[in-house]
Amino acid sequence: MLGPRVWSSVRQGLSRALSSTVGGWASGEGRKVDISGVYPPVTTPFTATAEVDYGKLEENLHKLGTFPFRGFVVQGSNGEFPFLTSSERLEVVTRVRQALPRDKLLLAGSGCESTQATVEMTVSMAQVGADAAMVVTPCYYHGRMNSAALIHHYTKVADLSPIPVVLYSVPANTGLDLPVDAVVTLSQHPNIVGIKDSGGDVTRIGLIVHKTRRQDFQVLAGSAGFLLASYAVGAVGGVCALANVLGAQVCQLERLCLTGQWEDAQKLQHRLIEPNTAVTRRFGIPGLKKTMDWFGYYGGPCRAPLRELSADQEEALRLDFTSNGWL
Amino acid sequence: MLGPRVWSSVRQGLSRALSSTVGGWASGEGRKVDISGVYPPVTTPFTATAEVDYGKLEENLHKLGTFPFRGFVVQGSNGEFPFLTSSERLEVVTRVRQALPRDKLLLAGSGCESTQATVEMTVSMAQVGADAAMVVTPCYYHGRMNSAALIHHYTKVADLSPIPVVLYSVPANTGLDLPVDAVVTLSQHPNIVGIKDSGGDVTRIGLIVHKTRRQDFQVLAGSAGFLLASYAVGAVGGVCALANVLGAQVCQLERLCLTGQWEDAQKLQHRLIEPNTAVTRRFGIPGLKKTMDWFGYYGGPCRAPLRELSADQEEALRLDFTSNGWL
Amino acid sequence: MLGPRVWSSVRQGLSRALSSTVGGWASGEGRKVDISGVYPPVTTPFTATAEVDYGKLEENLHKLGTFPFRGFVVQGSNGEFPFLTSSERLEVVTRVRQALPRDKLLLAGSGCESTQATVEMTVSMAQVGADAAMVVTPCYYHGRMNSAALIHHYTKVADLSPIPVVLYSVPANTGLDLPVDAVVTLSQHPNIVGIKDSGGDVTRIGLIVHKTRRQDFQVLAGSAGFLLASYAVGAVGGVCALANVLGAQVCQLERLCLTGQWEDAQKLQHRLIEPNTAVTRRFGIPGLKKTMDWFGYYGGPCRAPLRELSADQEEALRLDFTSNGWL
Amino acid sequence: MLGPRVWSSVRQGLSRALSSTVGGWASGEGRKVDISGVYPPVTTPFTATAEVDYGKLEENLHKLGTFPFRGFVVQGSNGEFPFLTSSERLEVVTRVRQALPRDKLLLAGSGCESTQATVEMTVSMAQVGADAAMVVTPCYYHGRMNSAALIHHYTKVADLSPIPVVLYSVPANTGLDLPVDAVVTLSQHPNIVGIKDSGGDVTRIGLIVHKTRRQDFQVLAGSAGFLLASYAVGAVGGVCALANVLGAQVCQLERLCLTGQWEDAQKLQHRLIEPNTAVTRRFGIPGLKKTMDWFGYYGGPCRAPLRELSADQEEALRLDFTSNGWL
Repeated sequence: MLGPRVWSSVRQGLSRALSSTVGGWASGEGRKVDISGVYPPVTTPFTATAEVDYGKLEENLHKLGTFPFRGFVVQGSNGEFPFLTSSERLEVVTRVRQALPRDKLLLAGSGCESTQATVEMTVSMAQVGADAAMVVTPCYYHGRMNSAALIHHYTKVADLSPIPVVLYSVPANTGLDLPVDAVVTLSQHPNIVGIKDSGGDVTRIGLIVHKTRRQDFQVLAGSAGFLLASYAVGAVGGVCALANVLGAQVCQLERLCLTGQWEDAQKLQHRLIEPNTAVTRRFGIPGLKKTMDWFGYYGGPCRAPLRELSADQEEALRLDFTSNGWL
Repeated sequence: MLGPRVWSSVRQGLSRALSSTVGGWASGEGRKVDISGVYPPVTTPFTATAEVDYGKLEENLHKLGTFPFRGFVVQGSNGEFPFLTSSERLEVVTRVRQALPRDKLLLAGSGCESTQATVEMTVSMAQVGADAAMVVTPCYYHGRMNSAALIHHYTKVADLSPIPVVLYSVPANTGLDLPVDAVVTLSQHPNIVGIKDSGGDVTRIGLIVHKTRRQDFQVLAGSAGFLLASYAVGAVGGVCALANVLGAQVCQLERLCLTGQWEDAQKLQHRLIEPNTAVTRRFGIPGLKKTMDWFGYYGGPCRAPLRELSADQEEALRLDFTSNGWL
Repeated sequence: MLGPRVWSSVRQGLSRALSSTVGGWASGEGRKVDISGVYPPVTTPFTATAEVDYGKLEENLHKLGTFPFRGFVVQGSNGEFPFLTSSERLEVVTRVRQALPRDKLLLAGSGCESTQATVEMTVSMAQVGADAAMVVTPCYYHGRMNSAALIHHYTKVADLSPIPVVLYSVPANTGLDLPVDAVVTLSQHPNIVGIKDSGGDVTRIGLIVHKTRRQDFQVLAGSAGFLLASYAVGAVGGVCALANVLGAQVCQLERLCLTGQWEDAQKLQHRLIEPNTAVTRRFGIPGLKKTMDWFGYYGGPCRAPLRELSADQEEALRLDFTSNGWL
Repeated sequence: MLGPRVWSSVRQGLSRALSSTVGGWASGEGRKVDISGVYPPVTTPFTATAEVDYGKLEENLHKLGTFPFRGFVVQGSNGEFPFLTSSERLEVVTRVRQALPRDKLLLAGSGCESTQATVEMTVSMAQVGADAAMVVTPCYYHGRMNSAALIHHYTKVADLSPIPVVLYSVPANTGLDLPVDAVVTLSQHPNIVGIKDSGGDVTRIGLIVHKTRRQDFQVLAGSAGFLLASYAVGAVGGVCALANVLGAQVCQLERLCLTGQWEDAQKLQHRLIEPNTAVTRRFGIPGLKKTMDWFGYYGGPCRAPLRELSADQEEALRLDFTSNGWL
């Protein structure tokens, strides 16, 4: 756990950030980080007593390190971030940073409900080594989160963040699709470099690519189920839960798309849809972790109130992999 | 209008069909019609007094005939079929058949709420010259339309239809997505040749292509907004409202996809998204018809309760075309 | 079935109605029919071969005639009206009119998708003896059915209807809640006497009562599950599927509410919720018809694509009645 | 802010609680707190720089203290609890406790996303003086929150809570309706005394009252819009945002219901629906706080990303009060 000293340092950092807005990211204007590529959104391993298991986290990263990922997303929705304390969130990022080679990007989920807390968390994430912050839309008051509110929120965060910001829209969790007009406005902010879009609406993804074409704005597909289609309409990569277990295959799908081998890409994409749905919408993080156990990683338990799969669910999960030739 | 004599003949035809199930499509087993390609779902022109204007219909078809469409969809959702009497539905198909060259496919929407009415309408559509029947899911009782009910419904229709059947799923209108497992089961019926899927979920489209790969089952995208992405995951064509006004462009997009010119395809697809949304989800049939007026076709009024666009809406509609360089 | 002669007469009637708008309902201004009370929405009995069984219909009406209902709703959602031909719709109303004592109100569902067809059907319903027309919102293009469209639609229908009009909002089927502002505007029409609201949102029902209080506008709850609550906020009755099987109990609940015996009313209401949900949202018309069979009425089969309950569903249905002491 | 000493004491308390499960609430079995009555869910006042303004909080409470409320809800959805740090959440409850007379119940919202955090917060809330904990459903992973998960979550919390637990279902914020079967199961837990249901489905509320009738389980309506209807079906009170500004009126509505003056109750209820919707669904907390300013309380700003109302919205808000005679 981070001790009080680290927290104090974090707050000092924020203080500096707040007082140096002008000279902050502004100095780096035009130097937008290239986030294209594939990322696994890493899970947070827990012990049997629900403590974060940092050792297992490092083991998983070590194994995942053999694939040509662009980097890793830490504390996306698959990271159970809403179940972690602030200290745990930072410690996890710290450990991942230490475990990663310097050329791998670390995108850290820093979204909180309030703008202020999100700014603080983003600054802290930067201080412990994140290369970019992936900021989920606030959601509890999603009925009030219109474009104006969201533009204001993200602008504030991006203004004060020492690292580039990636928007993150995941309606299945938040009940909220970051409106396209808000995305377009935010794409003009020099410290906002892209969006991870997990909604799966490829018409929307194409429209975002189209309407931000003058801003060098980068779109990442939020799931492997529509990765090929997203590449086809102009996305530059994906954050794919499935890459935690089928890392080689997701990277291969990327390569096939980038090299224009669309027929092979299509065949591979087809075989990834059911496994992908199984570890996301159908069985959620418990499904993903169970599959990790099968594939030689450490999945382990989720924190409550998430529950383990039943035997029937586990069987259905397995079938989604075996019927596509992956198990 | 069809007189009583035509109706009587229609009913005799149905009677024959019902009594010759075995020898019906069965004789044509294996001979599945190739429906790949682009189709405009034609609108139904009305006079100022809301009568069907068959003359304008033929004029529109004549103008549309210059594009390399595979054929025409008559009485899809854009045809205002729920506002037509049974006689009008058949007469419209009759007239379209007469106006079309023989090599253009005529897909006729024959869906009704009851299975029996759908069978009768399908048989009648065949008798007046439809090449295939496009059958929308029943929707008033969509809460009861589970896979079993829908499989039973479509099987009955396909059993008794003298022409091939295309499934039609359009959740924006029906509140109902034809479940993938139902589609897969139905794909095995020798008289069901494909599906028009208007939901826009490309993950689902890819999955349908994948799971029906052994059945020679053909998937048509139901809108131009996700046409490229649908081709990328294995669709063979599209039924695109936008093709009523940008026919050349939609056909060009098809060609670019089929010849693997994905970069150009992407650029063109991008410029079609907003116009497409404008004539479908955003402004509906009134928007499509207004745009037809602009592009040299006859759009004209809709039947009530559909209403004309307001001046503000019309301006927004126009902007979606001008900002993408089409007007 | 109605022969051509009846249809011809119907059209003449419409013609008269259209040409006498001014002297039509206007002459009866101020004379609004009192629709307060309980109504069963009668089912349409079918034979084993799916023909309308008019004999069974009359038998059911005869049995239901022993309860103090205000009248009967014919071709509400429970009447499977989307599965009936126009002729059948009128013939059913004709038969019900003949079977009913003159003091029982006959509310006939006359809604169609187009305004024109709705007007024609409403006029026809009047000619075959309906006391009022219950007009469901058009629904296939519900995305375009804003207040303006719906106000226009209902105004036209009410202008031309020889009998009073009752609005009918049933979002579970139509995907559309008739907006409160539209209801308030329409309540001022002299030929619109009330609304059947099946949405179950009692805040909305209270608001409608409140905002139409100067118009003598009558609100009927669309289901027995919220009948007591609707009375408590100012509704004057209910159209209750459950009254087809527990007619005495629903009428008793009405009486308890009207006489201010709220404690007893509450106890009775509680015991009706599960049975009511079972014959509506949970098991639909197949559940209602199955229960009718149990209670001595003729339920019989539904028309396809509605399907019979499975054995498991039937058991669950029965439990909802036995556990509340009704079987 | 709470210093480290308080937190340490909180954790010791939790530790005691965890090790004394058997002797905890078990000793108080059968002695369920009576939560019937009306509660304002108090807002959290902020200064212009977004600090919690404890002085204004106490002033508001002092003014609200003149009405016959049963007590106060602190950190319901209207308390902006997702925007408060853990320390702030506890400090607010501490201050409210100090400001309240001993006979007023303090229901403290203690819900967090993880079961563990919820347990800790609940124990802490108890230690700073809450009489009962109101525990909102976890929501970020609402797709996985089935009955089994929620029963497990609440059972754990109730097992370890030193104070009675009130379930809290608010689908507009959480995207999740606590299933009736889960409520029924949980109603049997000796330390779960009731539910605040904000969904507004009075059929559901009636069913919950009915199915928990043997458990002395208490249902509170979660909004003033359906308060009368909820009393009519067996609720025992309400947590009403509107009571923050029309406290006398909401208490009067309660009295009219409890004394069986249903006609007067109905008239009053009618006049409260629009103002209630205005300060909840329509304009949210910014609307509530603005109205508080008008009625002599301190409303003040919300924390970002919630935003102030526009001038147009403010006018519409005012109209909802003036048109009903409250301003």
